[in-house]
Amino acid sequence: MTIVEYGNDILVFDCGFQFTSEEAAPGIDYIIPNTKYLEANKEKIRALILTHGHLDHIAAIPYIIDKIGNPPIYARNLTNIMVQKRAEEFPHMPTLNLNNVTPGEKLKIGEFHLKFIDVTHSIPDAMGVSVGTPFGNIVITGDLKLEHENGIPSDKEQKNWGEIAKDNNILLIADSTNVEKPGFSIPEKQIMENLENLIKNIDGRIIIGTFASQFDRMIKIIQIAEKYNKKVVTEGRSIKTNIEIAKLAGILIPRKDTIIAPKDIDKYPPDKVLVLATGAQGEEFAALMRMAQKKNKFIRLTKKDTIILSSSVVPGNEISVRKLKDNLYRHDVKIISYQVSDVHATGHGNAGELAWINTIVKARFFMPGYGNHSMLKVHAELARSIGMKDENIVVPDNGSVIELREKGTKIVVLKEKAPSNIVMVDGFSIGDIQEVVIRDRQTLAQDGIFVVIATIDLSTGKLRKSPDIISRGFVYLRESQDMLQQARRIVKTTVEENTVGMRPINFDIIKKELSDNVGRFLLKKTDKRPIIIPVVLGV
Amino acid sequence: MTIVEYGNDILVFDCGFQFTSEEAAPGIDYIIPNTKYLEANKEKIRALILTHGHLDHIAAIPYIIDKIGNPPIYARNLTNIMVQKRAEEFPHMPTLNLNNVTPGEKLKIGEFHLKFIDVTHSIPDAMGVSVGTPFGNIVITGDLKLEHENGIPSDKEQKNWGEIAKDNNILLIADSTNVEKPGFSIPEKQIMENLENLIKNIDGRIIIGTFASQFDRMIKIIQIAEKYNKKVVTEGRSIKTNIEIAKLAGILIPRKDTIIAPKDIDKYPPDKVLVLATGAQGEEFAALMRMAQKKNKFIRLTKKDTIILSSSVVPGNEISVRKLKDNLYRHDVKIISYQVSDVHATGHGNAGELAWINTIVKARFFMPGYGNHSMLKVHAELARSIGMKDENIVVPDNGSVIELREKGTKIVVLKEKAPSNIVMVDGFSIGDIQEVVIRDRQTLAQDGIFVVIATIDLSTGKLRKSPDIISRGFVYLRESQDMLQQARRIVKTTVEENTVGMRPINFDIIKKELSDNVGRFLLKKTDKRPIIIPVVLGV
Repeated sequence: MTIVEYGNDILVFDCGFQFTSEEAAPGIDYIIPNTKYLEANKEKIRALILTHGHLDHIAAIPYIIDKIGNPPIYARNLTNIMVQKRAEEFPHMPTLNLNNVTPGEKLKIGEFHLKFIDVTHSIPDAMGVSVGTPFGNIVITGDLKLEHENGIPSDKEQKNWGEIAKDNNILLIADSTNVEKPGFSIPEKQIMENLENLIKNIDGRIIIGTFASQFDRMIKIIQIAEKYNKKVVTEGRSIKTNIEIAKLAGILIPRKDTIIAPKDIDKYPPDKVLVLATGAQGEEFAALMRMAQKKNKFIRLTKKDTIILSSSVVPGNEISVRKLKDNLYRHDVKIISYQVSDVHATGHGNAGELAWINTIVKARFFMPGYGNHSMLKVHAELARSIGMKDENIVVPDNGSVIELREKGTKIVVLKEKAPSNIVMVDGFSIGDIQEVVIRDRQTLAQDGIFVVIATIDLSTGKLRKSPDIISRGFVYLRESQDMLQQARRIVKTTVEENTVGMRPINFDIIKKELSDNVGRFLLKKTDKRPIIIPVVLGV
Repeated sequence: MTIVEYGNDILVFDCGFQFTSEEAAPGIDYIIPNTKYLEANKEKIRALILTHGHLDHIAAIPYIIDKIGNPPIYARNLTNIMVQKRAEEFPHMPTLNLNNVTPGEKLKIGEFHLKFIDVTHSIPDAMGVSVGTPFGNIVITGDLKLEHENGIPSDKEQKNWGEIAKDNNILLIADSTNVEKPGFSIPEKQIMENLENLIKNIDGRIIIGTFASQFDRMIKIIQIAEKYNKKVVTEGRSIKTNIEIAKLAGILIPRKDTIIAPKDIDKYPPDKVLVLATGAQGEEFAALMRMAQKKNKFIRLTKKDTIILSSSVVPGNEISVRKLKDNLYRHDVKIISYQVSDVHATGHGNAGELAWINTIVKARFFMPGYGNHSMLKVHAELARSIGMKDENIVVPDNGSVIELREKGTKIVVLKEKAPSNIVMVDGFSIGDIQEVVIRDRQTLAQDGIFVVIATIDLSTGKLRKSPDIISRGFVYLRESQDMLQQARRIVKTTVEENTVGMRPINFDIIKKELSDNVGRFLLKKTDKRPIIIPVVLGV
């Protein structure tokens, strides 16, 4: 989320999820923007502007739109449809005030004069925004790449960016995702030509795994299937949902009989069927992994199948994609991936594209945006390498406040930050990370839990009966009877030695001694450190 | 682990760890080879042969050498030193019977005539083995690449492999790790030239992060440092250990004053110091991450530092490496990684190298080895593409038994498999995966645990006092007092409604009802499904 503020007006840009890694934050569903600053300045918020419909730009809306006063939302058509579709899953959300905008259109919001820029990304209706202020324009690219041929941007790009170049641009904020990659990214057009060739020439059944968020590609694959008289089977909820959205938006109008039900797949010869499936990231419960594990009711893989993985491997998914490929290959299928053939292109421009945009926009100042901190630093280095002065570049971190001063002629990073500690969605709970909960989950995942239950006769200080032990995620108890027996003896001895002469019995001391003694014993026996929970009852 | 068996003789090749992913198997330390077949055929085992000293080839020895009857071990000098060094950490291990072998040497073990091949890998003393049988030779490459210039293998490789080519080779088993990469891998020589240029020319302090297992590179970096009169500081236990091993093996003889203590680092000008550090994979507690987090006592990063990440990103570590880079960049250092400069080369040959080896060895049959199943399938495809017949290629899976029949003229994959289910090391526990323990750990990591303790008056069926609740890894209890209060009421109601007229009180029924009711309530309130543990006591 990026905020632009001038006088009494705040514009908010994008409102997405960050996905977490299981290891760093077990059990946590998502990270969402920290909106404390916005909540404190709610009355100034004039609009939430969404650059495109991907989840990392829109998905946090249901969690925070209320907190920031449900401002009007401005986005292009497909983006708004996606926001609306998602809102339907959150029945308690307030009605959203969605407004369609189009590139070329000019819009005054508060003191700002906005222009919308048609940009190329992996989803239709992506846009950048030029925010006109009294001292010049702030250009926000959103996520984007360039349409180009051999590094020459297309006429469309030249025209769109040429228009923006005419303004007095004081600041450019640009996508940094692929800045570490040199040159220009592969144009989507080339990917589609390759896919068309494959679809045309491959004998047998073709199964294409891709991101459901790759709207353009999904739509074109269906159109190519129609061209070669193939039926299309869709597998996976997100693909089905996004095809519905594409139809709603009018950007996909398949023939009535193109998309067939999975149960009808065997009514057609294998080379007349194309399957579009989710799960190219190796997700355990998605369509491709289910096929690989013979769990799909209608699709049985054979060596006559060719599987095209038309997607890159999202960082963090390398092991699950490897596992997917292993399991697919066990059916002797053929696999075509982006490593061996150009069947996937990124939606984010490489260094060459970013340099071209930077040069044409000619903003006085530059702030790399949209990416990990290391990407931002590399993007700053790129800007320096094409001639920007060091003092005209600012690299923000989460929460940084950057001020354009003296009528936009000076840029300063303030010492103070907006609140930016991580906000997590954990089931229905939304808020600051609770270190202790996360730490406990990590320990539980490693070593499990060991509960000992001791009932003490308050008058004698002796145990009333042999202590109970309940354990989960620690060791396989059925094969550890001997150790359990010893643990019970340690519980008994610990309690009874400590209660000698102790009246009244101090339960806190007993519990602490139990934790220490049992923990030490288990560590010695198993080299594991389960969380020990002593339950001590006096009767 | 690969086994070669003929008549009454078994040779075992390698004995390594497989590393696990936290998500798939939380808490599990390593996966080790399943040795059930070997245990049942212990008396036939003539030798354990180790192709080189990396952990995925030697590290399981302490866990299984006893089970397979502590056979003699044959390896080259450095490998044996590494095995010995590791054995010192396992005091209860039997004394190992380590034997040095050298390339060129011929050795008869049982009915086998062995020859050892000097191969190029990222650790010195790596070897392949040619196993002479009465019907021809089985050539096992171990992990390897080729020394080459622009795709022309060096004289050494031509000579070594040329020797092997003279035999009647019936089967080649070859490294598949990098078969998915085209052409030839970057020669280590080129990497060292680049590193030397960087070390020579960079102003300020240089910190090089690398794998401790990259012996050759570590040694050469120290030699280059000496050449340019720089002191070397080593940070991280594995690097210190491996430098000790290199000295023991006589392959590193640094000048007496080259390696200095970290505390002396500020006694020298920054450009006269080179730091060799562990943690280039972003490991949380390794040297580089500690520097990035300002936890290193003597090394404070500044913008005058250049950090060279001389390693690739091991699949699965992408997110932690990204986090490392983010944190390093926050100190405004410069970072040079293998993505932007050739500062790392793999130890495993690409497709071009593997094809060259396959062609020169001219074995009748081919079995891709050393790699994930998908890599083996791609390697089989490579063999076909250079002219091997389909029926002469076998792709094994874990546990596959492959028989060379009719004097080595026929190859068959048996229907039966050797036991190959996964054997895990979990603390001191070694054995089959216990699904239930792993599953519990996964649930605990996601949703935590919720223990309710109810004390029932056996005569009335009423609770003696308000139930206790203990929870870990679920939600932040301090902020959930209201929910806890409701949960207590549900416990009370559940117990007291169910005990009405129930004499004697059936504790199993009460526990089940408690689990159901409390679980349902918590799910509704939190959207989380903690493991519910009902503790019910009658007094």
